[in-house]
Amino acid sequence: MSELRWVDGGGVTSARGFRAAGVNAGIRSAKPDVAIVFSEREAAVAGVFTRNRLVGSHVKYCRGLLKAGRGHGVVVNSGNANACTGRQGLLDAEEMGRAAAKALGVDADRMYVCSTGTIGIPMPMDKVRNGIADAAARLKADGGAEAARAIMTTDTVPKEVCVRLNIDGCEVTLGGMAKGSGMIHPNMATMLAFVTTDAAVDRAALQDALVRGVNLSLNRICVDNDQSPNDTVLVFANGAAGNSLLGPGHAQWDLFTQALTELLKRLAFAIVRDGEGATKFVTVRVAGGASDADAELAARAICNSMLVKTSWFGGDPNWGRVIDAVGYSGAAMVEGLVDISYGDSMVVKNGQSVGAGALDEVKRTVTQPAFSITVDLHLGKGSCEMYTCDCSLDYVKINADYMT
Amino acid sequence: MSELRWVDGGGVTSARGFRAAGVNAGIRSAKPDVAIVFSEREAAVAGVFTRNRLVGSHVKYCRGLLKAGRGHGVVVNSGNANACTGRQGLLDAEEMGRAAAKALGVDADRMYVCSTGTIGIPMPMDKVRNGIADAAARLKADGGAEAARAIMTTDTVPKEVCVRLNIDGCEVTLGGMAKGSGMIHPNMATMLAFVTTDAAVDRAALQDALVRGVNLSLNRICVDNDQSPNDTVLVFANGAAGNSLLGPGHAQWDLFTQALTELLKRLAFAIVRDGEGATKFVTVRVAGGASDADAELAARAICNSMLVKTSWFGGDPNWGRVIDAVGYSGAAMVEGLVDISYGDSMVVKNGQSVGAGALDEVKRTVTQPAFSITVDLHLGKGSCEMYTCDCSLDYVKINADYMT
Repeated sequence: MSELRWVDGGGVTSARGFRAAGVNAGIRSAKPDVAIVFSEREAAVAGVFTRNRLVGSHVKYCRGLLKAGRGHGVVVNSGNANACTGRQGLLDAEEMGRAAAKALGVDADRMYVCSTGTIGIPMPMDKVRNGIADAAARLKADGGAEAARAIMTTDTVPKEVCVRLNIDGCEVTLGGMAKGSGMIHPNMATMLAFVTTDAAVDRAALQDALVRGVNLSLNRICVDNDQSPNDTVLVFANGAAGNSLLGPGHAQWDLFTQALTELLKRLAFAIVRDGEGATKFVTVRVAGGASDADAELAARAICNSMLVKTSWFGGDPNWGRVIDAVGYSGAAMVEGLVDISYGDSMVVKNGQSVGAGALDEVKRTVTQPAFSITVDLHLGKGSCEMYTCDCSLDYVKINADYMT
Repeated sequence: MSELRWVDGGGVTSARGFRAAGVNAGIRSAKPDVAIVFSEREAAVAGVFTRNRLVGSHVKYCRGLLKAGRGHGVVVNSGNANACTGRQGLLDAEEMGRAAAKALGVDADRMYVCSTGTIGIPMPMDKVRNGIADAAARLKADGGAEAARAIMTTDTVPKEVCVRLNIDGCEVTLGGMAKGSGMIHPNMATMLAFVTTDAAVDRAALQDALVRGVNLSLNRICVDNDQSPNDTVLVFANGAAGNSLLGPGHAQWDLFTQALTELLKRLAFAIVRDGEGATKFVTVRVAGGASDADAELAARAICNSMLVKTSWFGGDPNWGRVIDAVGYSGAAMVEGLVDISYGDSMVVKNGQSVGAGALDEVKRTVTQPAFSITVDLHLGKGSCEMYTCDCSLDYVKINADYMT
């Protein structure tokens, strides 16, 4: 991985030709709530959206734009999801994109739109319009950090990553930002992530690479068992780095897709670490599944179990709740074949406790801020790795207090 | 329903010919932890068990006994689930049943066995043997209440119900007890329920009636999203009432099955009311589904959503989280057709808020200790009703502190 150079403090304006801004438009509170990320050069665009049957207005709008697969950037608001807002919501999303495009002097259908926040409240368009004009006027070559703050809702920290690599001898940069800390469920969540790169990338190849990368990163995380209608990941590749067009035929295509996937993983991990009320980061591995799909069922059941997650919060390696979750997951399981380890210590062998001594050891593991659990079903070669957090008192407090 | 006479304070010893006891054997703590329910006359037995692929030892043992479908009663311990205990666990379950049968002077394979408590700990059989001998010696005609206490784990109250009706001019009694307040999920949960009746009932008909009754009651409740390996419902019908054998050909068969279903519903509701940390009882109705199965998917998603349940705890009618859950449930849904009501007040019409006034009204509804939510999908005639509770700070505390 030495070919990937991670850049501390980098984000969506680290790649050449991208500028950004984040401003407060007073949509819900005094925090910054409108962000624009903009490339002077038209970029190839790839996107992945929520699989929820309920979709926010911006998802409907962006799906339309994405057919052309070209764009100059995205305008994002936090504080209002613009979901369950009917025909007016769709008109508002379109107006946001067109207003940003006009202010930035590009074609009307070249600015993407994202919204995150409360569901079912009409968009305060007067405020939004002012916020867009304000952000468009303030775009900066180092504006990535303030854009990352403007897209936050219940997040406690902004989430930015940046990686550099060489393609055709040209230095290529990928920068990303994400938001999301609740409604985080595999298959996308209340989660927005944006990646910019100055690499020149074939549009269809970029879409394929994004889908594969998301499946190994943002679709492998879980904070709670809810899935948002607004989840969106967008990648903009503007070609300013000067490399020859990347795609499956390019000698360094695998390196580029690896960089994209690793960058998406780091954003995904940052979302889990900032999970609502989370105190622990847990990697759940299931091996020996009858199939990969079975291993994924088992891993998801463990990650979604409230009893498992509350036991982690209590510092209790309650392996009974883990094997119980595997049992109801739908995955093929033979009780007498199951092994469970916490970190490197096995506590369950052939479906039974290996003894009280091992339990004492893993009790120390479960008090750590990050640890892993491995379940081996010994039925085949299926495997899956997922990333989740514990469920704390603060999770309930945050979600009981977050009023409509 | 005037033909069903509900009896306050009744339980598993209210039907003729049943005795019970509950004693402390020191399995885990000083609370009563071994119960026996016993009928002098051999009874027809029906049973329903967890659908988890991981099953406790007693489930394996009882499934074997149930092939004959006859028995004199059940011995139950709390404090240890006897699950993930391998071959020794199975031997222990068998020994429990045989020891109880011997102490009570009946055939060795006529006493059923249930265990509930922590997973993965060997059964302390010396204590269990003493407890069984003690309970067998103390059986009382009014012992139902102490048996109901002895099967409790994290339950805060015992759960007993009793109903009387006339069959063939004979008074027939059904009495029941249940335990369970966590790991409560549709399709059975950490839940044990026992029903005794002095009615004479055909064994196969009793099994059918139990399955149908459980599907409308204990399989329609949800506390958390976990499903236990030990869930068991057993019905004993000893025929002491003197009625002619009940079955589908009997004129009052429907009345009897109605009584059984209603009794199971009351036990189910008692479990939800005593849900770990629960402060609110919520009835979730989904109407207008493309099918009953779709309506059930939608209802289960709402009942399982941590965001929905924490918002109820906060007294917040967060309908956005409700429609979001329907969206990812897998049920067919058209956003613009969805109506949502809290109690009698509609807050969402055609997928959008009906206005802030209605929201204020339903905020009062959601602060009540019991309320209902109705979602109409307007796609067909499918419907489903489920029963659940909120998710409170105490839920997390209880499950973070309940150590392995």
